[in-house]
Parts: sequence; structure tokens; C-alpha cells
Amino acid sequence: ERSYSVTLLPGDGIGPEVVAVAKDVLSLAGINFQFKEMPIGGSALDAVGVPLPDETLDTAKSSDAVLLGAIGGYKWDKNEKHLKPETGLLQIRAGLGVFANLRPAAVLPQLVDASTLKKEVAEGVDLMVVRELTGGIYFGKPRGFGTNDNNEDIGFNTEVYSVSEIDRIARVAFEVARKRNGKLCSVDKANVLEASMLWRKRVTILASEYPDVELTHMYVDNAAMQLIRDPKQFDTIVTNNIFGDILSDEASMLTGSIGMLPSASIGASGPGLFEPIHGSAPDIAGQDKANPLATVLSVAMLLKYGLGEESAATRIEAAVIETLNRGFRTGDIFSSGTTLVGCKRMGEEVLKCV
Amino acid sequence: ERSYSVTLLPGDGIGPEVVAVAKDVLSLAGINFQFKEMPIGGSALDAVGVPLPDETLDTAKSSDAVLLGAIGGYKWDKNEKHLKPETGLLQIRAGLGVFANLRPAAVLPQLVDASTLKKEVAEGVDLMVVRELTGGIYFGKPRGFGTNDNNEDIGFNTEVYSVSEIDRIARVAFEVARKRNGKLCSVDKANVLEASMLWRKRVTILASEYPDVELTHMYVDNAAMQLIRDPKQFDTIVTNNIFGDILSDEASMLTGSIGMLPSASIGASGPGLFEPIHGSAPDIAGQDKANPLATVLSVAMLLKYGLGEESAATRIEAAVIETLNRGFRTGDIFSSGTTLVGCKRMGEEVLKCV
Ligand SMILES: CC(C)[C@H](C(=O)O)[C@@H](O)C(=O)O
Ligand SMILES: CC(C)[C@H](C(=O)O)[C@@H](O)C(=O)O
Repeated sequence: ERSYSVTLLPGDGIGPEVVAVAKDVLSLAGINFQFKEMPIGGSALDAVGVPLPDETLDTAKSSDAVLLGAIGGYKWDKNEKHLKPETGLLQIRAGLGVFANLRPAAVLPQLVDASTLKKEVAEGVDLMVVRELTGGIYFGKPRGFGTNDNNEDIGFNTEVYSVSEIDRIARVAFEVARKRNGKLCSVDKANVLEASMLWRKRVTILASEYPDVELTHMYVDNAAMQLIRDPKQFDTIVTNNIFGDILSDEASMLTGSIGMLPSASIGASGPGLFEPIHGSAPDIAGQDKANPLATVLSVAMLLKYGLGEESAATRIEAAVIETLNRGFRTGDIFSSGTTLVGCKRMGEEVLKCV
Repeated sequence: ERSYSVTLLPGDGIGPEVVAVAKDVLSLAGINFQFKEMPIGGSALDAVGVPLPDETLDTAKSSDAVLLGAIGGYKWDKNEKHLKPETGLLQIRAGLGVFANLRPAAVLPQLVDASTLKKEVAEGVDLMVVRELTGGIYFGKPRGFGTNDNNEDIGFNTEVYSVSEIDRIARVAFEVARKRNGKLCSVDKANVLEASMLWRKRVTILASEYPDVELTHMYVDNAAMQLIRDPKQFDTIVTNNIFGDILSDEASMLTGSIGMLPSASIGASGPGLFEPIHGSAPDIAGQDKANPLATVLSVAMLLKYGLGEESAATRIEAAVIETLNRGFRTGDIFSSGTTLVGCKRMGEEVLKCV
């Protein structure tokens, strides 16, 4: 019997609630799992004084996949950078080397009304943002504070990409596009930034290895517009770390139901990191109000992209759809005529369908 | 009688058509103008081999205000960076020192259907993005191409802000917010970038000088979401050059009618640069199809922010509204029941109302 070890990182706010549900769903997937739960983010800061304890990273590294809930909260908002919950997230991404962040944004027919877009614009949106996750301005050096020639204080960061960093994320994106609709749009700011010029050059060169994928290029400002004007024009988008941060959140919000959206972060080898895209929502934490479906769908991505267990992944995705079809909704996606349930109950309903 | 010199930079594509209309409108504003027309962008490249000829910059600098049409086109897309039309735009911004780019995005009741947002979300949106325009990653050094420690090719740019650069754009934004609804949202990525941490610190310090303005902070990824979720929550947004490039385009597209949107770029002293936010639209150039209203409204900003001629500005804005109320529409904003007109005719109709 196949057997995998999964590190659970519940984190902060609603993280523990949604991870608990997702763990139960995973346990029913017909595969044998060993779970280990470890602290990260604000709860790790409270417990041991750092946002990513060494044992957490070590455990994560030696497991087959990592499931993260959410991190952060008002309580730690004023902390210095190295003591911020977010820093734990950046550290585990770097520590696991998960350079490719896959963020699907699809408008489900059941939830099309949740979008602030007109129905005819939102209907049928189904795109995937492939965001570079361990390079660019997030990690580039030099960075910090200093003074300029006028002896004035400055803050500075470096946006930098190397050929190998661009090539590996581009390859992931071409592969993803190939398995989807075969359309890849690379987003950059090559009319201004040298880092983007190299990006565009390498992506263009690699395209010859993927003749079945149709590659286009778009400037980031135009992409931010086109996502609103006509999101259906996109299939797969590939972009750098900071543009991906912005555009993937923009794309998510097009669906109007970010409580439904999962993500996968994968590297060249080693375990992937899977997490819902929503935050820790401290205002509803501990009240059994959170929507666990984004985390349940993250578990589906864990099975598919992390473990190659496609059929179990498909079963979980189908269970989520069936649960929606049966009318169950948490508060964030509730509309009249549907059945309002809490986090736990939503989990139980999904379990019935797996 | 008051008298001003205005440099006209028609540029490429539809630029000459829309600037011609706007010039006629300006001429009727009841003020005396001397116009000088100079080349920029692709047409300057074709004529004299550079995207911003010295004489163009000199003329612009010595005038009271500069009106730009649009630049760029397929023809020059493959040029090297220093021979791109866009480079002319970056050079004139830097040359004039226009560090503050004001970009209003308002949904007019007449055009609310043009938005891809649901009516109840789009209705009443009225925000202003104040974008820093001559600093940050657009101009930061070092930049270029090189090799890293592994002898791999890299491309790199520097995001850098000094205290004085932040302070001057923040002051403009506080002043703008003060004249609007008194709400300023500063957008940054201070949970990751040092340049943003300094930005947030300075903006927070300056807030004490503007007790009548309510200051909030938002991360750029969240701002990209919130603009779609509930754009009415925003009044004035201030942000850096690259985030402003992205968010102002996103905000524009919320209106669904970017053919209507003007912009103003102003410095500490010297002439401001006024231009529609739309591009050169080479596909419809020379066909009398362009919407001149964004350029006409840019002329209103020129009068208001560039010359302090508020009442003439208000008259032009009112003329545009009246023209819309009379049912005239160019193709980009046409809907059934309105009267489809070309660029010139739209200009004539506005002139009748001034
Ligand atoms: C919390 C923050 C550091 C993080 C990022 O910017 O990557 C988040 O916005 C995300 O997209 O996962
Ligand atoms: C053409 C380009 C260089 C420019 C920019 O990025 O500033 C444009 O997108 C704008 O916003 O005016």
C-alpha cells in the first residue's frame, strides 16, 4: 500500500480549523498518510520566538508534502521584519526551494454570482497563474537601508533574474499550459526593466521546445487591465515573483470567492508546499465560520502535483463540486436559497461525497 | 490678457487626431495660447533617429504646459531600448522632473454600462491614483545585464526611494486627498521590501501635517483585489512608480472606458505633462475613429493643475459631460440608443458646448 508523510502547518487565525478539515478529507482519500503537525508564523513566534523554527523546516523537508493553513494576525503586525509571521512563509518557500507557485482562478458555475464582474464576463473564467516564487525582488541582493550621494536615507531592493531561474519557471509554465488549453501568456515589463528583457528573451527561446503551446507576451500594466476587461482570454499566465503576487491576487478576486482557491508551490525535487490563497482572517478565527474548501482543494493539488495521485485528487475535487451542488455554503459564499453551514459541517458534507 | 505657451506633442498612432481636437477645445477656453508642435516617440525616431530630440525637450521645458497624444506602434516594437518610442516618454518625464502622476478613474453615470463590473459595484466609483513617476525601479541604479557568482547571465534593476522622493510625492497626495474626500490610501509591499518600509515610515510621519486627511496603508496585492471587490472604498491612492503603473491601469479598466481618462504629471516647478492614458491604437490610427475625450479632459487637467485656470477647466469638463448627455459616442463607448460619431465630429460637438 502506498504511504506518504505529510507535514501539517496549521499556522494562525483560521489556519488550524481549515487544516483540520483538509486533513480529514486527505485521510479518506484511500491512501495511507502519516501526519506531523508543526508550528509556523505567529503561533511559532509565540511558542519559540521565531516564525520558522528549524524543526519545522527539517520536518517539512523530510516529508513528502507540506500543507499550510494560513499565517499572520494583528498581534504580530508591528514586529520587526525578521519577527514577522510572513517572514516564516518566505523562509519556508526558500528553504524548500519551491520556485513555482501555481494559482488557479476558476469561476465555478455554482458561484458565478459571487463575482463583482458581470455574469457574462465572469462565466467560464478558468485560468492559472504560474508565479516565480523564490527569486526576483523578494530575495534579490543587495537590499536594505543606506544613504545616497546626497547623504539622504534610502531603502532599496534588487529585482534580479538569472537564465536558470527564468528557464526553470518557464518550463513549468509551458508544461502546465500544455496540460491545459495550450496557451501561455508571459507577463513582464520588458519595455522598461532589464530583468524583464532577459525574462522575455529566455521565454521566447524556450518556446521552440514547446511547439504545441501558443506563447504570447504582455506588459504587466496591460495584463492588470485585460484581466478585468476579458479574463477569458487567458489560459496560463507566467510571471515573476512580484508581478505574480499582484496579478494572482487580482485574478483570484475576479472569481469573487477567494475562500475557494487553492495553491501549489513546487520545486525541482523534494516536497511541495500547498496552501489556500486566503489569509488567516483573525476576525473570524475560532468561530467555526471559515470556508475550508480552499484548503480541501489545496489537498487535491497536493495529491496531483505533489504526489502524482491524480485519481484521488479528482475524487476530492468532485466531492467539493458535489457539496456545492447539494447547496452547502459557508458565510463567504452564501446566497439566498442555499444552506449556510460552518467550517466543520462543510467538512463533514465534503467527506460524505468523497 | 493672460497668455500661455503650450507644447503639443502629438506623437504616434491616433495621437495627432486627438491632440488636434484637444487643441481646438483649448483655443476656445477664453485664454490666449501660443502652440508649438514638436516630435516625440516613433515619429521622432523616423524623423530624426531619437525618441526625444533635444529641441523637443528644450521647447517643452521653456513652455507653460505640455500636451502629449500617444506614443508607440508595432513598427518600432523590436527596437533596442534606447530607440524605443517608450524611452522618449521616460526621458521627457525625467527631463521635466514631473514626479507626480495624477490618474483619475471615475465611472460616469452615462457610461456605467461600459464597465465589466456589475452596475452596483461600478456606479459611483471616483478615485484618483497618485503615482510616483520619476523614481523607483524605472530609474534606479545599478541596472543592466551581467553575470552572477555561477557565471550565469542575469538581468537586474534597482527599486530605490530616498526620503525626499517619498516626501514630495506623499505631500502631493495628501494635498490631492485634502481637496477630494480626505481619504488617502498608501499602497506598498512593506511586509517584504525595504524600499516599501521606508515609504510607509515617511508617509506615516508626514500624516501628522495633514490631520484632516485619513491615512490608511494597504499591501499592493490586497489593493489589486480590493479595487475589484469594492472600488468605492478608495478615494485617493498614492504609490510608487511600478505599483502605480499596474494599479492605475487596473483602476482605469474598472470604468470600462479608458478612452475617457486623462492624466496629469507635475513637478515641483516648471511645466506639467498632460496626456490621455490610452495608447496610440495603431489599428485605428488615421481613420477618424479615436475617442478624443481623454485628451480633451487632459486639457482640463492642464488648465487646472498646470496653469491654475480652474474655471476654464470646469467649463471643459462640463462640455464633455453635456456632449455625452446629448448622446454622442465614439465607437469605444457606443451603446445602442446613442449616436455614433468619429473623432472630429466628437470634437465639434464638444466645442458647441464649451
Ligand atoms: C504574505 C506575503 C509575504 C505573501 C507574498 O507576498 O508572497 C503573500 O502575499 C502571498 O502571495 O503568498
Ligand atoms: C509606456 C510605458 C513606459 C509607460 C510606463 O510604464 O510608465 C506606460 O505604461 C504608462 O503608464 O504611462
